[in-house]
Amino acid sequence: MERDLLGEDDVAALAGLAERVRELAGAAVLTGAGAEEAAAVADEVTALTARLTAKRRNAPPYAASGDIWTATLGEGRRIDRQVANPVTGHLNPIAPPVDLEVGSDGIVRGEFTLGAVYEGPPSYAHGGVSAMVLDQVLGMAAAATGTPGMTATLELRYRRPTPLGVPLQVEAKASRVEGRKVYAAGTIAAPDGRVTVEASAMFVMPRHFVTSQY
Amino acid sequence: MERDLLGEDDVAALAGLAERVRELAGAAVLTGAGAEEAAAVADEVTALTARLTAKRRNAPPYAASGDIWTATLGEGRRIDRQVANPVTGHLNPIAPPVDLEVGSDGIVRGEFTLGAVYEGPPSYAHGGVSAMVLDQVLGMAAAATGTPGMTATLELRYRRPTPLGVPLQVEAKASRVEGRKVYAAGTIAAPDGRVTVEASAMFVMPRHFVTSQY
Repeated sequence: MERDLLGEDDVAALAGLAERVRELAGAAVLTGAGAEEAAAVADEVTALTARLTAKRRNAPPYAASGDIWTATLGEGRRIDRQVANPVTGHLNPIAPPVDLEVGSDGIVRGEFTLGAVYEGPPSYAHGGVSAMVLDQVLGMAAAATGTPGMTATLELRYRRPTPLGVPLQVEAKASRVEGRKVYAAGTIAAPDGRVTVEASAMFVMPRHFVTSQY
Repeated sequence: MERDLLGEDDVAALAGLAERVRELAGAAVLTGAGAEEAAAVADEVTALTARLTAKRRNAPPYAASGDIWTATLGEGRRIDRQVANPVTGHLNPIAPPVDLEVGSDGIVRGEFTLGAVYEGPPSYAHGGVSAMVLDQVLGMAAAATGTPGMTATLELRYRRPTPLGVPLQVEAKASRVEGRKVYAAGTIAAPDGRVTVEASAMFVMPRHFVTSQY
């Protein structure tokens, strides 16, 4: 399937839209509006959806250039950014989104905050949300080795609850590459520095790798 | 923190709103709208968010009664439904949502379809999204034993890519209970019946369990 490649101006406008929809989703979970007002707002939302679907893509777009991966993987290999990724994508309203950077030490790091839409146990993040974030961050650490791949195994150890509404630190690093396999490990930590979730994973690069995957 | 308990009428109205916001999020990821139209729609979204936040809760609400858990765990124990859960919650726009039922055999089963907002590799679900769904389904299988708990460990094995846009089957069952620990396992399967992801997990019931957690 052919993917649209967006320039930075389009990305900025669509990221602004996604941010507003992200706020709306959070408001929908926390609203104390009565049934009548909720239904009235729902009707307005339907009209906005119609405006956005008047012209529609077949699949989420990618963004070209200006990319941390371009730097990490060298000039010779271009990997377009997956701007609608459900964890990191600024164009995706369901993404927190988590901003990640790859250090010269190969460690992928990011800070993020989870709101009410990610709640599992009262006032804590859903365990599956932590798993989703760690899958992405470990996958990016694997990709930073130059051997990006799809998740083959993912193991999570929950040490303590992950709080909502405060800045969380996530980091990951690849430990070794064996042919098309890459092993990586990482953690999420609370503001007090204590690790809440540990993860380790193995990623496998498909034989016919699509370079516009990440 | 005190939680609001909603009646079925409120749940229906707020679920309708969440469904519309879910559609808007999908449209935002796939829209081919230009920068000007995207910005105009974003402004309208901001106004709707303001309407919803005019009256606001401190935390996501729960719904009382009419609950599969009430039936499973017996009349003596009431566990309110977490209607804004990020996997199963009809009041949560980021939830697919996955509808689950507990069979008399103790197996939790559900069917769900993942749209573009959940994309990882092109045309397939993000590995972390499958992890998030399985954490929830295995957790509900654990809870069905009468010993609900928080995720302690979660292990995922990705057998093949999980396709977007088609009905997926998920199921899980608890294998054993050891004091406050419950072990469970489950799978996601594609429409052809082939398993795409396998999971096993261990859940631990907190010493002071909050009954309105699920």
